[in-house]
Amino acid sequence: MTKIEKSSDKQNNELKPESGLSSLERRFYEIRNNKIFELFVIGIIIFSALMIGANSYEVSPTTLQFLSVLDIAITVIFLVEIIIRFIGEPNKKRFFHNAWNVFDTFIVLVSLIPIEDSELAILGRLVRIFRVLRMVSIIPELRILINSLIKALPQLGYVMLLMFIIFYIYAAIGTTFFANINPTLWGDIAVSLLTLFRVMTFEDWTDVMYETMAVYPLSWSFYLSFIFFTAFAFLNMVIGIVVNVLEQERQLEADIENKVSEQPTLLELKEELAEIKALLKKQ
Amino acid sequence: MTKIEKSSDKQNNELKPESGLSSLERRFYEIRNNKIFELFVIGIIIFSALMIGANSYEVSPTTLQFLSVLDIAITVIFLVEIIIRFIGEPNKKRFFHNAWNVFDTFIVLVSLIPIEDSELAILGRLVRIFRVLRMVSIIPELRILINSLIKALPQLGYVMLLMFIIFYIYAAIGTTFFANINPTLWGDIAVSLLTLFRVMTFEDWTDVMYETMAVYPLSWSFYLSFIFFTAFAFLNMVIGIVVNVLEQERQLEADIENKVSEQPTLLELKEELAEIKALLKKQ
Amino acid sequence: MTKIEKSSDKQNNELKPESGLSSLERRFYEIRNNKIFELFVIGIIIFSALMIGANSYEVSPTTLQFLSVLDIAITVIFLVEIIIRFIGEPNKKRFFHNAWNVFDTFIVLVSLIPIEDSELAILGRLVRIFRVLRMVSIIPELRILINSLIKALPQLGYVMLLMFIIFYIYAAIGTTFFANINPTLWGDIAVSLLTLFRVMTFEDWTDVMYETMAVYPLSWSFYLSFIFFTAFAFLNMVIGIVVNVLEQERQLEADIENKVSEQPTLLELKEELAEIKALLKKQ
Amino acid sequence: MTKIEKSSDKQNNELKPESGLSSLERRFYEIRNNKIFELFVIGIIIFSALMIGANSYEVSPTTLQFLSVLDIAITVIFLVEIIIRFIGEPNKKRFFHNAWNVFDTFIVLVSLIPIEDSELAILGRLVRIFRVLRMVSIIPELRILINSLIKALPQLGYVMLLMFIIFYIYAAIGTTFFANINPTLWGDIAVSLLTLFRVMTFEDWTDVMYETMAVYPLSWSFYLSFIFFTAFAFLNMVIGIVVNVLEQERQLEADIENKVSEQPTLLELKEELAEIKALLKKQ
Repeated sequence: MTKIEKSSDKQNNELKPESGLSSLERRFYEIRNNKIFELFVIGIIIFSALMIGANSYEVSPTTLQFLSVLDIAITVIFLVEIIIRFIGEPNKKRFFHNAWNVFDTFIVLVSLIPIEDSELAILGRLVRIFRVLRMVSIIPELRILINSLIKALPQLGYVMLLMFIIFYIYAAIGTTFFANINPTLWGDIAVSLLTLFRVMTFEDWTDVMYETMAVYPLSWSFYLSFIFFTAFAFLNMVIGIVVNVLEQERQLEADIENKVSEQPTLLELKEELAEIKALLKKQ
Repeated sequence: MTKIEKSSDKQNNELKPESGLSSLERRFYEIRNNKIFELFVIGIIIFSALMIGANSYEVSPTTLQFLSVLDIAITVIFLVEIIIRFIGEPNKKRFFHNAWNVFDTFIVLVSLIPIEDSELAILGRLVRIFRVLRMVSIIPELRILINSLIKALPQLGYVMLLMFIIFYIYAAIGTTFFANINPTLWGDIAVSLLTLFRVMTFEDWTDVMYETMAVYPLSWSFYLSFIFFTAFAFLNMVIGIVVNVLEQERQLEADIENKVSEQPTLLELKEELAEIKALLKKQ
Repeated sequence: MTKIEKSSDKQNNELKPESGLSSLERRFYEIRNNKIFELFVIGIIIFSALMIGANSYEVSPTTLQFLSVLDIAITVIFLVEIIIRFIGEPNKKRFFHNAWNVFDTFIVLVSLIPIEDSELAILGRLVRIFRVLRMVSIIPELRILINSLIKALPQLGYVMLLMFIIFYIYAAIGTTFFANINPTLWGDIAVSLLTLFRVMTFEDWTDVMYETMAVYPLSWSFYLSFIFFTAFAFLNMVIGIVVNVLEQERQLEADIENKVSEQPTLLELKEELAEIKALLKKQ
Repeated sequence: MTKIEKSSDKQNNELKPESGLSSLERRFYEIRNNKIFELFVIGIIIFSALMIGANSYEVSPTTLQFLSVLDIAITVIFLVEIIIRFIGEPNKKRFFHNAWNVFDTFIVLVSLIPIEDSELAILGRLVRIFRVLRMVSIIPELRILINSLIKALPQLGYVMLLMFIIFYIYAAIGTTFFANINPTLWGDIAVSLLTLFRVMTFEDWTDVMYETMAVYPLSWSFYLSFIFFTAFAFLNMVIGIVVNVLEQERQLEADIENKVSEQPTLLELKEELAEIKALLKKQ
């Protein structure tokens, strides 16, 4: 999302092929960075996504057969694409250091396994669904977006932990008091956590509350304090992220300003003036 | 919304009529930019909006007839207004380059078609409803607001695409597993997408979840991860927009500062000092 | 909320009494600005609020009689307080220029009217409820908060208008198509506006949608586009306010910096240097 | 969350033990600041949290007995830990000035009381649940987070008060008019406050509204104005916090800039130039 990441990502992609490449590798390197090749692959991914969608409707047996042939074709195209990208990679070792490449290869390899067992058929379908995610690995802007989302995660870490502690304590209290009132909602700690998440999303939370208020009239304080705490922690998290992002942008800007213009500081100017004064006094 | 757009929009409107205008054109140009004319048209639009509202109540046949006469009057006024604005336009070609003018003309022209067929009557009503949108084309501040909203759209593009990919994958998974549990909610990919949108708005999402949890007890992870991903992507989008808007404002401010005051840089001052020192040393 | 308003409000309150005050006025002016007097009045307001609360429970006739005596006492205290504040006001004319003073006087005067008619009894109760609002007129910080909220309103004006136009158009379309499906929700334009507000708050909006989808299967696009438009306009509004507030703060800061330190500009420094160079060259 | 608090907190922890410490105290001081000791305590807390969770499931009597033995072990470990931390504290008086230490000691001491009475058994369980909160007192980052949350509270004070006044007035009006329609929702002022909180979270608020609209058709204005006021006050609160946090960061940054670099001001430079000019003119 920020400019820094964008530029660093570009750098990676525009890396010149090392001189030690064979003519085949050079050719594949060119194919790999070709815009038309990229658009073709994106087209195939969209087509495979549409096929998944079509599969969810009831289709005639002939169409089904046609779709399964198409599926094989897509798998082959993806396999060829991965091979081209692998051969075209100047540095073979680095290819699998990129998590997206590993993901792509895994998805394509699993698609190759012929599945006849009905148990595994569902796994085959899942793999085909996850092929849509290849969109992210192909379009650089989406890859950048995902990367920046992942980078934002650790800074949420402690707020998440704090929220989980709040959830856990309330779930434990909820189970202790309300387990007998409604075991489906408060039967054990796992179910209570789910119920509390529901309360946090304001989903029919009053139904949950009125039920326990019939037994413990003061239990509204349990729900209201929980809503207050989680809303407050959530708000704090959002504000924390906004401030952080703004800080980074400002820092980046300040750095650019300092580097590009190489402006002298006011202190340097003052020293210059002192020298001039000394020169004048000497005269 | 920002000052830049406001000023640029003003510029467009305050453009002096070119010298080659006939006296009629000049007169119409003046009418067109007249404040009272604008207020009159706004009044007519509000009146037509009220008429649409009145139409939604059950009214006596005589009132209905009266309303249809009023409707013809409004259509004629709008037609005259468009003609005045067209003749008053110094540059005829540019008139239809403005999307709002095209919209206005289209709406007025369609209103002119006499509709007797009951099938088309509904279309006639729709066109009359869209006449309320003429408010936006008449009031410059609303036009600016809409323009700035439209300008903000492309910057959302990739986050939207990412969100759609998330939706699509979850919808495909949902259809695969839950289609048999509740075909109304998960029957095919389109219906699943709608159900997921419902889950994202927290609308009775636990009802959807409890139903599938009865068959797949772990399906809560499907919903929770979906809520987490979409909430996170949405948050990121909002923060992205806030940061972008603030960036633009800052950039604009910095530009103004640099241009208006034409302050020398510190580097220039240092060079001046160096020259003085050289002069002093020469003496 | 911002510092500017805070200081300007303080200024108003700390205005020295004009020299032409009689000794009585001077005394009342002192009472009026006395911290203990203020706390006493706040105490009475809180007490009257608690009485309203107590009244909502079923109470014995003797308690009811006791409460009505207390009510008279509170009214008298408020009357005395207003009189003190009025006499203590150095500039009598300005007293009623302050909307809060007018509000206070109105509320107290209406409380004085003896009500026996059961029809008017409800009005008497309402007036007593609005006495709680006197809290805002007594506590300066709340007054500032309300003022800043009111000041923020006009900047929302055009977004509000745009939202209303969106609402109106959707309500008109909704009435046209769905009036026959569910007259309670879409019967006329007023009811449709209420239903759309409900959809905007995501309150059981799928129930509304599923009902119309049974007749018009494509009506989901009506709801989704409506949610998208209103959410987008709302988001834009929030971002607009945030940016505006930040802008104001920055402007204020810049002004303070410029005024307080009266720093010379770089341009002034450059001119000084030019003069020195001229002097040196002359030598 | 901000850097200031982080650094100040670190300072507290890294305070060198005063020279007057005995060898035992010095040793315990070292244990207390030992990373492995900290991780061990965190492990025990997590384990006790898991035990609470396990307790919420139906377990066999032998497991229950095993869990109660484990519980005693945990209590003893916590007791030892508190003693180590107390002895290791260089300044004994300051130990209980820290609210977290007081909390830790209280929780551990109450855990020690043997409970047989079934009435008190629930209190014993609650104390065990609150032991999870010890996580916050052990992990410095969480302590900082909580502190920054608490620090943000007073700045919300007046908005909270304003919101409560809005709630109270609406609750009083609601009770006056709607008490007879639905006593469960509007019976007295406390129940009305709860109902209004429900309306604010948009939880089935239309059900509440439609019910009263059947008697008072204009009562929608009651709900809509309430939603508008609370949403507006809430929005203002959030914006206020964001602006405040950004202000603080900027202030901090400005302070650092001024202190670290000790740049001369432009005014100082101008004075220098004036001196040089005077020197030149004298020549």
